[in-house]
Amino acid sequence: MTDRAAQLIDEARKKLGSKAVITDPKEIEPWVSDWRGRVHGNSSAMLAPASTDEVVELVRLAAEHRVPLVPQGGNTGMAAGATPPADGSAILLSLRRMNRIRSISADNRLAVAEAGVVLATLHDAAHEVGMRFPLTLGARGSCTIGGLTSTNAGGTQVLKFGTMRSLVAGVEAVLPDGSVHNGLSGLKKDNRGYSLDQLLIGAEGTLGVITAVALRLVPAIAARAVAWTGVDSPAKALELLRFLEARTSSIEGFELVPQDSLDLVLKHIPATRPPLSGEHKWHALIEATTADPAADIAAELQSLLAAAMQQGIIGDAVIAANEGHAEAFWKLRDTISEAERAEGQTLAHDISVPVADMPAFIVDAAARVEAAFPGVIATGFGHLGDGNIHFHVRAGSHAAPGWYEAEGEKITHMVDDLVTGVGGSISAEHGIGQLKLAEFARLAPPGRIHALRAIKQALDPLGIMNPGKLVP
Amino acid sequence: MTDRAAQLIDEARKKLGSKAVITDPKEIEPWVSDWRGRVHGNSSAMLAPASTDEVVELVRLAAEHRVPLVPQGGNTGMAAGATPPADGSAILLSLRRMNRIRSISADNRLAVAEAGVVLATLHDAAHEVGMRFPLTLGARGSCTIGGLTSTNAGGTQVLKFGTMRSLVAGVEAVLPDGSVHNGLSGLKKDNRGYSLDQLLIGAEGTLGVITAVALRLVPAIAARAVAWTGVDSPAKALELLRFLEARTSSIEGFELVPQDSLDLVLKHIPATRPPLSGEHKWHALIEATTADPAADIAAELQSLLAAAMQQGIIGDAVIAANEGHAEAFWKLRDTISEAERAEGQTLAHDISVPVADMPAFIVDAAARVEAAFPGVIATGFGHLGDGNIHFHVRAGSHAAPGWYEAEGEKITHMVDDLVTGVGGSISAEHGIGQLKLAEFARLAPPGRIHALRAIKQALDPLGIMNPGKLVP
Repeated sequence: MTDRAAQLIDEARKKLGSKAVITDPKEIEPWVSDWRGRVHGNSSAMLAPASTDEVVELVRLAAEHRVPLVPQGGNTGMAAGATPPADGSAILLSLRRMNRIRSISADNRLAVAEAGVVLATLHDAAHEVGMRFPLTLGARGSCTIGGLTSTNAGGTQVLKFGTMRSLVAGVEAVLPDGSVHNGLSGLKKDNRGYSLDQLLIGAEGTLGVITAVALRLVPAIAARAVAWTGVDSPAKALELLRFLEARTSSIEGFELVPQDSLDLVLKHIPATRPPLSGEHKWHALIEATTADPAADIAAELQSLLAAAMQQGIIGDAVIAANEGHAEAFWKLRDTISEAERAEGQTLAHDISVPVADMPAFIVDAAARVEAAFPGVIATGFGHLGDGNIHFHVRAGSHAAPGWYEAEGEKITHMVDDLVTGVGGSISAEHGIGQLKLAEFARLAPPGRIHALRAIKQALDPLGIMNPGKLVP
Repeated sequence: MTDRAAQLIDEARKKLGSKAVITDPKEIEPWVSDWRGRVHGNSSAMLAPASTDEVVELVRLAAEHRVPLVPQGGNTGMAAGATPPADGSAILLSLRRMNRIRSISADNRLAVAEAGVVLATLHDAAHEVGMRFPLTLGARGSCTIGGLTSTNAGGTQVLKFGTMRSLVAGVEAVLPDGSVHNGLSGLKKDNRGYSLDQLLIGAEGTLGVITAVALRLVPAIAARAVAWTGVDSPAKALELLRFLEARTSSIEGFELVPQDSLDLVLKHIPATRPPLSGEHKWHALIEATTADPAADIAAELQSLLAAAMQQGIIGDAVIAANEGHAEAFWKLRDTISEAERAEGQTLAHDISVPVADMPAFIVDAAARVEAAFPGVIATGFGHLGDGNIHFHVRAGSHAAPGWYEAEGEKITHMVDDLVTGVGGSISAEHGIGQLKLAEFARLAPPGRIHALRAIKQALDPLGIMNPGKLVP
């Protein structure tokens, strides 16, 4: 611990009391490494403010003592953006004690949640007032509203409702100079200068500490229908999506699954079975929802899929007969990564390209990677309708031990080059954090890097907000 | 003209040809004052690039010679944000020659339009491919995509589709250092650092020159239904809106009109007549639309309004029997400002407050202003569902000539104080430009002003992008 850090901790304890300053290494330990255990950091304390005023105090102390803060929510990030540096030079700032839902209104279709509110808690609160917060993802039981906003999280319902950027009506944040930006009034129209709300969304805590967020709610779901379809190619899957979207506004989920991924799931995950009897090279999992209790969403989806089959867009389709059935379909999609891990080493890439280019990209990029690195197996699965797939490369049966170390970086470079070549993003939903910083620096246009650095320097001249993340 | 400006003009002509450099004062004259004739500027030339590359050349010359540029689209702004300073120190940069629609696709639901494309032209192009660009406003025949994006324009369809910020999928812009930010690939998910797209939206040309925009399209309207309703109060109007929104997703327009405004329209605008036979203190104009050719939108709206009447939410309602009838209803709303001008002097305020607070605000603020300035008549009308009303104060019959000069600023200060007091915005959709700069400086929190200045200085250290606008 540096002297400056020690001073900050000492003063913080005097001002905020010991509840807000945790120094027991055992209590800190679970939070200084990212949850996948890839990056290990250090922090001599974990600051845990309970209010925006307390965050202001801590940011002022950080500025005074020139000690950087690393804001953290549920520590469920995929890019180690909330993991402190290993040298102990920064201090962890946990927002988890700020966990109040300050207000929630079905009439206004708005909730104001503090940064530390867990996503599942917000889901429940919205449900209680007959509404719904539509964004959801695997970590919903532990990820927090502040982290979701700071990383502009995505998930499986982006197709209809967008990422956090679309669902945030306003942000409250403590800026690096200790001032409070209050965007919580949730004005629908407000043209008073640059949008600090939008700048803070996805900034990974590098421009300030998000303390509360105003969130848009949507009507609760009355019913859902889930279908599994077999298609010949990603191009046919996209054709199906567009066929459906032209005829209904109820499609909320549309996930592409290659046969190869399905085979792995059936092999490694207990109690799974193929949804269709015939063979199909590709599959699309479809979820349609309605807020109208009078609508028969299953019948609507059934008749649309029948029409799509008649037109030769899909080879086969089955609609889940009940909720258990629907959950079984989703399990086939949600356990792909787990099945891959059971099979062997896997390199994951969270990428996006323009939706229209996605079908060709999946096929072409997989062929190129497999040709360049003989023995590997490359597949893409996931959110086709968002232009966002998880492009995974497996070692394959012929690869030697140490494959990851030997070829991993080269393969990732190749994938990222291919993505960049078609105007895509090397980080669709996971962010840059620490893990993608080098690739971002390698591939971003110099003008963009210059602009990001200039903004960072302008708002955080002392470098006290999550240094070493996001901005190359 | 300064020597530096003369040098820039000379070099621009050499590099881009005379078509891109207009110096005939007669050609320049219509563009150096704002369209309402409130602010008069000067520019020794009007630069008119035809491509992004030409904009890059001009921005580089501006940086080299330290001559500021004032980007301009259709010159239809309400805050003089595109009017050059009177001292001739800056040069007008017209984007109107960049008027290509680069691509448009119903499948992708995207159009890429250059900055100079007129809104009505985009509407037509979308219509031709069976789609729709939903944002619209009075100046649609002359305002441009670049200007609409730079001012985050609103209009009458914000209730359902949001402002430009919601409809822009990406921005291409020349930054002050001459680099090109290309956000046009329209990725639905992209988490690679601060969103420059979002920063440029609403920046009024102070951070760069927007040269093209990727825009989201929505399905074309199959049918619309327009209704006029009489209600007792703004609170009842909001109750009606929420009643409707809880039962249908088809409400696109919801405009509040006080009896006083309707009376003025009926008095001054030819060929207008009251839609309802009885007396009502307030009125709500409602537009519902559907993209489904099979839906009977008029019948749906009719039955919802009948239910609202049964529940005592509204006093009376009438549905337009045909398009001519519907247009007549909209005319009553759209000519309020014109009728006010015919009646006498009017002070206009484009304000927003949280939607839930709007009914009380309208009544309360009007009473306070009328009490503080005896003789004036204060009314609020407009986009109730967006929390955005046009709060207008008329001189009234007792006010003396010179009223505007004598009391105008004091009244505006009072209105802006009241708005700020409830967490509202003194500029809902018109922006800050030059005309609201002093009020913005007076009322914005110091932390916010500091942040805006820091961002401006960071990205435009030479101050060549529309100086004297937006940032106090």
